[in-house]
Amino acid sequence: MRMIDIIIKKRDHHELTTDEIKYFVNGYTDGSIPDYQMSALTMAILLNGMNDRETFDMAQAMLKSGDELDLSDIKGIKVDKHSTGGVGDKISIPLAPLVASCGAKNPMISGRGLGHTGGTLDKLESIPGFSVDETEEQFKDQVKEVGTAIVSASTNVAPADKKIYALRDTTGTVEAIPLIASSIMSKKLASGTDALVFDVKCGNGAFMKDKAHAEKLAKTLLAIGKQHGTKCVAVLTNMNQPLGNTVGNSLEIKESIDILKGEGPKDTTELTLNLGSHMLVLAEIAKDLDEARAMLEAHIKDGSALAKLREMIKAQGGNEKVVDDPSLLPLAKHQYDVKAPADGYVTEINTNEIGMVSVYLGGGRLKKSDKVDPGVGLIIHKHLGDQVKAGESLVTVYSNQDYDEEIAQDVLNSYQISGQPAPKEDLIYEVLQQD
Amino acid sequence: MRMIDIIIKKRDHHELTTDEIKYFVNGYTDGSIPDYQMSALTMAILLNGMNDRETFDMAQAMLKSGDELDLSDIKGIKVDKHSTGGVGDKISIPLAPLVASCGAKNPMISGRGLGHTGGTLDKLESIPGFSVDETEEQFKDQVKEVGTAIVSASTNVAPADKKIYALRDTTGTVEAIPLIASSIMSKKLASGTDALVFDVKCGNGAFMKDKAHAEKLAKTLLAIGKQHGTKCVAVLTNMNQPLGNTVGNSLEIKESIDILKGEGPKDTTELTLNLGSHMLVLAEIAKDLDEARAMLEAHIKDGSALAKLREMIKAQGGNEKVVDDPSLLPLAKHQYDVKAPADGYVTEINTNEIGMVSVYLGGGRLKKSDKVDPGVGLIIHKHLGDQVKAGESLVTVYSNQDYDEEIAQDVLNSYQISGQPAPKEDLIYEVLQQD
Repeated sequence: MRMIDIIIKKRDHHELTTDEIKYFVNGYTDGSIPDYQMSALTMAILLNGMNDRETFDMAQAMLKSGDELDLSDIKGIKVDKHSTGGVGDKISIPLAPLVASCGAKNPMISGRGLGHTGGTLDKLESIPGFSVDETEEQFKDQVKEVGTAIVSASTNVAPADKKIYALRDTTGTVEAIPLIASSIMSKKLASGTDALVFDVKCGNGAFMKDKAHAEKLAKTLLAIGKQHGTKCVAVLTNMNQPLGNTVGNSLEIKESIDILKGEGPKDTTELTLNLGSHMLVLAEIAKDLDEARAMLEAHIKDGSALAKLREMIKAQGGNEKVVDDPSLLPLAKHQYDVKAPADGYVTEINTNEIGMVSVYLGGGRLKKSDKVDPGVGLIIHKHLGDQVKAGESLVTVYSNQDYDEEIAQDVLNSYQISGQPAPKEDLIYEVLQQD
Repeated sequence: MRMIDIIIKKRDHHELTTDEIKYFVNGYTDGSIPDYQMSALTMAILLNGMNDRETFDMAQAMLKSGDELDLSDIKGIKVDKHSTGGVGDKISIPLAPLVASCGAKNPMISGRGLGHTGGTLDKLESIPGFSVDETEEQFKDQVKEVGTAIVSASTNVAPADKKIYALRDTTGTVEAIPLIASSIMSKKLASGTDALVFDVKCGNGAFMKDKAHAEKLAKTLLAIGKQHGTKCVAVLTNMNQPLGNTVGNSLEIKESIDILKGEGPKDTTELTLNLGSHMLVLAEIAKDLDEARAMLEAHIKDGSALAKLREMIKAQGGNEKVVDDPSLLPLAKHQYDVKAPADGYVTEINTNEIGMVSVYLGGGRLKKSDKVDPGVGLIIHKHLGDQVKAGESLVTVYSNQDYDEEIAQDVLNSYQISGQPAPKEDLIYEVLQQD
């Protein structure tokens, strides 16, 4: 088998065999296939596509390139959630303890922020003492005892994916749906979960800018899950504005606590309940979505979800007192408001830009080695459709540096304020099931 | 300017600016842009194309990356011919002395064989003593005195093209028309010629398999030439069978001599006269194609073309006696015939495979560093449309090894013999002029 023949086959719109896919994934991982051949192939895949069978084979080959967790000694149906990434997306943090408080087993392997999106692990690490590094045994023990744990992946999960992703990042081939789907699935399937709920983000703050692409990605994820024998549901959700009221690390922890107290913003609360309902149904804890939602609401109301959050934080070495006293969380020294220049309605928010402002403040990363500042971020006062008056605060900036004109301008530029309100947008577009 | 933005722009079907094209050609040549980014871009160019302006800019940028010849001190309109490559294509060898004998100045910088196509320089080097290496001064002096010289390019002609071509060869991006056209033109324009006749080959032994692609390539070459101020004509010709009766180095020299004696095969003689006529018109030596053809025919008849060949061989250090005594040319020790297995008509010849058989015999190269055997090759007795009887020789193999069953089988497999003759094919499909 020769790499050039595989490149030419895909270039000429043909389907690659399972063996050909294994050949290039393994060859690229072990270094026998050079970067320049792999990048020609990934560009051909981006432009000519891959079908579900090829995408599954690619996910499998990347999964098999590294370690896989075996969670079979944890009783019950293990269920997890994966978001394709957005701005202000802290849903995993309230969701994991909430579903665990209902009896679900939720072994969650999560990621760090890169580019305009924040990372769940970075947010959790803003809790004093909280550790996301656990051995496999510690992780399994915590899932057994607490019901959930949110940790980082072992360094040897899907090394093929790491290497291919780094190449895609520098060669303009990040946006290929088969490559995105196989990358996500190679890591998620390595975690040994039985069922998965996908939150596929769609809009100007997401990788998928329009519904057609988001739907295609969702269907591909569901198809790969099915072929692997993993039950999946995909929820298409709005990412045309930051999710909830906060963007940043400790600020998002604070909002997560509010959600579990029943005092969270409407959108993040709704999304937590929606995704949680699907998880409880997949875990066979609730017989339908209505029953599941009632359970979740009850566990917020009676404080057991909040208690589970304390338990999870404590189990991972964090100071669980933050739940009752958020002032124990780090917070940036300086705050300033970005104010509306005129009366009107918020008709558009450049969500990607809002995410980048958080990165510029130090809350995220431009490259993997960057350090993250836990206390900086943004509080979003005005959302899509909101009426604003000139001089009202749109956003409060939390920074460890003095007022920065450029930051304020970036925030302002990301808001479009018009005389007429735009049509209201849905938070949840669609739920897709496996065939 | 960033390479990744250029890749993404082309990936998303946008036109690249002149500066962007200069940036990546120069950056790749000086090593600041890595192979893996360049190969992603060449795949995007192959799949999404380039318009004539982009292709011209790419040819210009590659041309400017190295040395250019200045032929302005040679009087008259310098005219050259370029073939896109085929099997048995020895036309340059009779053509150069023929047009020079009519008074044209033909400074010809030619190439070596690679893959299934042979190289003019390799063929000429089968003449004892013949050298294709000349200094710029020697080259210009010979063109002034003899009217023609066929030499190899200096090592510093279009280094960008050399580097990009080597990458394309390993990444499945050879077949992109804008890349083929800019590669050809960067080298041809560097030779400083005033006018160019292209022989664009089309068929199963050519890079362009069908007329639509060949026509597209021809039009692109003409457009680049026009933008550069070089007068060009393109002739689309048949490459569905080897050209003439010989494939190999010394065998093709022998056929070239025959053409200039007026004793050559019909097809190679016709193509020599056709291309030569366009050259004489472009050089303003003849006022139209009819006058040009009459001149060429007269110079074959009166022996002055053959005399010019002797003169050219002598000027380049070769033994010009080969012209009158071809037994002075090296010839392989062994000969054997591949015979028709049944009565019928030749309806198809896999020309690429015939070319590869010549390479397997040692007459060509699989990689650039391979040495070429001057005496091996094939004499083609049966052409498309010919009637054959079982046991008649299709091809005589000239080899420096004993009878080789695999070689014989390859030759046989490349012939399709059927009960009914196929429709006759044209040698010359079309002539394209600049707008």
